[in-house]
Amino acid sequence: MPLSSTYLLKGLSEPRLQQINDAASELEILKGHILFQEGSPADQVYVLESGAIEMLTRVDDGFELPVSIIRSPGRCIGASSLVPPYQYSLSAKCVEDAVLTKIQRKDLQQLIDKDQAMGHTIMANLAQHLLDRLKETRHELKIHFKTLFRSVHS
Amino acid sequence: MPLSSTYLLKGLSEPRLQQINDAASELEILKGHILFQEGSPADQVYVLESGAIEMLTRVDDGFELPVSIIRSPGRCIGASSLVPPYQYSLSAKCVEDAVLTKIQRKDLQQLIDKDQAMGHTIMANLAQHLLDRLKETRHELKIHFKTLFRSVHS
Repeated sequence: MPLSSTYLLKGLSEPRLQQINDAASELEILKGHILFQEGSPADQVYVLESGAIEMLTRVDDGFELPVSIIRSPGRCIGASSLVPPYQYSLSAKCVEDAVLTKIQRKDLQQLIDKDQAMGHTIMANLAQHLLDRLKETRHELKIHFKTLFRSVHS
Repeated sequence: MPLSSTYLLKGLSEPRLQQINDAASELEILKGHILFQEGSPADQVYVLESGAIEMLTRVDDGFELPVSIIRSPGRCIGASSLVPPYQYSLSAKCVEDAVLTKIQRKDLQQLIDKDQAMGHTIMANLAQHLLDRLKETRHELKIHFKTLFRSVHS
């Protein structure tokens, strides 16, 4: 059970982790399966147990650019389901048969509404994760900018 | 007092906003002043009251790339002060004489530790803001990618 090792639930007590685990279910998917599409309504967040999921973003009609491959058990997939407007910000495709823990947003929301400390911890973890992704993405943008700058000035 | 209009404090009750306001102070800075440098320890978050602040990122030694200019009263500056590792993720430079509300992280942390519902709301607002910035940055990266792709294939 990798729930305790996911960044999203870091710092939660055992009884709180147990509550979330009780609300979660297991999902097995096969290589090639599309878990969700960018822009579609996001009602579930997933935690990887085994296998690999590729995250992609649509660049043009019919072409999706790979953003990352998630292989580490405990990594979260679809965390944008926890933030308005509740739409997946990337697409997720299974690239190696995978087992996932699936948590419905409405179930997590119910727990959080009753337990603000749980909500505080989860949202602080989510903010930290999103800031890390933002820094990474800005870093990539800087590399592109440098390449462009050098090609213009060489 | 623009605290009630900042995204970070959206949804907080009047008494909670008042508590934060009591802990805040006002800061006037002049055009040209560096509010903080990318990578430096982040102990304060700011809310813009008037003026304009340019956000920049270091590309190479001695060259900083503008990321955005913040002009709307109520906008937050330095929100990465609320997330470990508590370092500013961009530099902030005053480009028009400005008045800011300054909130010390330790003061906000004290309020949040006593009031988990306040912490839940603020962290959820922060996560939403960071997801929006992440989507914007990914969008810019896609534009760069398309430009590069077309220049290679034309």
